[in-house]
Amino acid sequence: MDHLKLIGQLKTSAQTKIVLLIMDGLGGLPLTPDGQTELEAAKTPNLDALARISDLGLSTPIFPGITPGSGPGHLGLFGYDPLNYQIGRGVLEALGIGFDLTRLDVAARGNFCSMDPETGVITDRRAGRIPTETCVKLVNMLRGITLPGVEVFVEPVEDYRFVLVLRGEHLEDGLTETDPQKTGVPPLPVEATRPEAEKTAALFNEWLSQARAILADQRPANGANLRGLAKVPNLPLFPEVYGLRSGAIATYPMYRGVARLVGMDVLETGHDIASEVETLRQHWDGYDFFFFHVKKTDSAGEDGNFEAKVHVIEELDSFLPQIMDLKPDVVVVTGDHSTPAKWKNHSWHALPVLLYSQYVRPTPQAAYGERPCAAGSLGQIRHIDLMPLAMANAGRLVKFGA
Amino acid sequence: MDHLKLIGQLKTSAQTKIVLLIMDGLGGLPLTPDGQTELEAAKTPNLDALARISDLGLSTPIFPGITPGSGPGHLGLFGYDPLNYQIGRGVLEALGIGFDLTRLDVAARGNFCSMDPETGVITDRRAGRIPTETCVKLVNMLRGITLPGVEVFVEPVEDYRFVLVLRGEHLEDGLTETDPQKTGVPPLPVEATRPEAEKTAALFNEWLSQARAILADQRPANGANLRGLAKVPNLPLFPEVYGLRSGAIATYPMYRGVARLVGMDVLETGHDIASEVETLRQHWDGYDFFFFHVKKTDSAGEDGNFEAKVHVIEELDSFLPQIMDLKPDVVVVTGDHSTPAKWKNHSWHALPVLLYSQYVRPTPQAAYGERPCAAGSLGQIRHIDLMPLAMANAGRLVKFGA
Repeated sequence: MDHLKLIGQLKTSAQTKIVLLIMDGLGGLPLTPDGQTELEAAKTPNLDALARISDLGLSTPIFPGITPGSGPGHLGLFGYDPLNYQIGRGVLEALGIGFDLTRLDVAARGNFCSMDPETGVITDRRAGRIPTETCVKLVNMLRGITLPGVEVFVEPVEDYRFVLVLRGEHLEDGLTETDPQKTGVPPLPVEATRPEAEKTAALFNEWLSQARAILADQRPANGANLRGLAKVPNLPLFPEVYGLRSGAIATYPMYRGVARLVGMDVLETGHDIASEVETLRQHWDGYDFFFFHVKKTDSAGEDGNFEAKVHVIEELDSFLPQIMDLKPDVVVVTGDHSTPAKWKNHSWHALPVLLYSQYVRPTPQAAYGERPCAAGSLGQIRHIDLMPLAMANAGRLVKFGA
Repeated sequence: MDHLKLIGQLKTSAQTKIVLLIMDGLGGLPLTPDGQTELEAAKTPNLDALARISDLGLSTPIFPGITPGSGPGHLGLFGYDPLNYQIGRGVLEALGIGFDLTRLDVAARGNFCSMDPETGVITDRRAGRIPTETCVKLVNMLRGITLPGVEVFVEPVEDYRFVLVLRGEHLEDGLTETDPQKTGVPPLPVEATRPEAEKTAALFNEWLSQARAILADQRPANGANLRGLAKVPNLPLFPEVYGLRSGAIATYPMYRGVARLVGMDVLETGHDIASEVETLRQHWDGYDFFFFHVKKTDSAGEDGNFEAKVHVIEELDSFLPQIMDLKPDVVVVTGDHSTPAKWKNHSWHALPVLLYSQYVRPTPQAAYGERPCAAGSLGQIRHIDLMPLAMANAGRLVKFGA
């Protein structure tokens, strides 16, 4: 049985509050075999003190060896099995720029590309990585394209990347990508993988045809490909599954977007941890559950900047007392995936987990770090186990069976 | 989703090499509660040094409490869920004697048995455990049997056991066994469990009829039963699933056979670890992945010979520097299943795992043994997790989802 379905059946109400504190890309690696990870190296007196009255464990986002993107990483944290629930690349790209997708939309990630004007074959799939300013200029040109019976939105992202959204009744996904994933061949047409999507495929092909005419003189960006054409997935709603009034606090559009996809209220906040804590305080009484997202651990990891990642963790640590002063009943501190500075990318490594509540089996002299968590009383779990554990510790699940 | 299917989708190429170093039946038990396991008692300075720069964990072959045979044990190591992919007993028995099975074959394990000539009931299912020389003599007599339209192969195994293989177009499996698993009743006929197998069932029954006529005067081996009638399973090919040029180095026929079943190249080698290491060195440049199998840990465990098992482990340890000198990117050291000398048989106990790569979270002062592995940063995993972890550590998997 799907975790979510069971939890939905067992949920009960309680006057308790849960904080899911996510440091994006938290899990790390030592730079040398005898060294410490970013989290272990960080001076985190407040997290360490909390660790000594909490359960510790390691959590695997999907299964061992699998590196999640941000979508699957967060779905897992929210209790949705990422292998059963998937978010299309076009949808994530739109969420990442804060585009407010509706159920009528089909979103695609667009890539400007270079094409040989004689033969029509792709010569560079990223159009020489044109600067973002050029991307913005080209997108403005493409905004002139109209299609019968649907609204068309084109938005720049970064470098050679843009987002295309068609909005209208009866649009369907089940559409193939146009990027052949190699050069020397022409782009593919959008094709329907099921009959209901044929009309939508024709609309995307018509858009591409007009776009290529407009871009003809714009070398190196004289072509465009579409990837990950998808509708918003029909996810069970988080507040309904768990019976939690749920607020999301995140500084980056993609994480606000994923939270909105699962039905959380996205709370207005600023651009740093201090603002996020202030937002938490302001909304404390209005919600039972807070998704609190810290982005810069991941950015530092992707930059390969061990020290910068340590610093973000230390900054979060300095705000922890303000969060604990609000008297949450359950606090889970972890990440959506690892981003070790040594690997410079998302990785597959299990995440340290700290679960604070009154109902735990703490380890004396523990600290919050990967190695102490590996020896902790929660043992090795999966991301989809975290919400059931948080709910149980919050007294919000009745027993299963008589 | 099936692990293999997901891995097949996420695999990417890299210039990295993986060694899967299997000591058959490696996992052990202390002889007394305060004692050490075979691996812990062995003096393994090289494995211990490697352990201090590696991830350690415990791996369960199938699920807790389940003791695997050699087939399921190795399928799990190779990433095939042994509950979804099964190798028939007849096929394994044929592989065990080095019989070169084709896709046209149905293989059965044969057991000589004793029958009452008056009533036709079985009086001893193992024919008084006749010596292997008698088995060879009887098999030679049975080689005279011919059947219409198929080739017939009979090969001796050991004691009362033999292998029967029918080879021909349109042979099908889905066949019942003739051994009633008790004495005092007659053998059962081979029956088809699906209509396509009826012709094949009739051929096996015809063979049995002729065999019993030939054996009539050969008491105590005046009858024969067939078990585990099966075709070669249609397994996804390991080199294709993982995108790895894959070589197998093993001294025993069954392990070479299982490796061949999943599509690995089986490399010629000698009869000891020294020869296997030499084979590894000779083929180092030609492959991305090596399955390196050491048999005698299992044999010593089955003999209940604790000291002999310790000695095999120490011998492998002495060759480890030669393997590491080849500069593998990822090395996994474990076993297919446990064979504790105290238990004298395959067992269900989890296996110690050492995973060496540059991207690990080592434990200082670790050693390679069951108890240190239980506290390691890999935690408790399953055999089917080992290949995804090896692939990830080798930089051969892209991330899942955007």
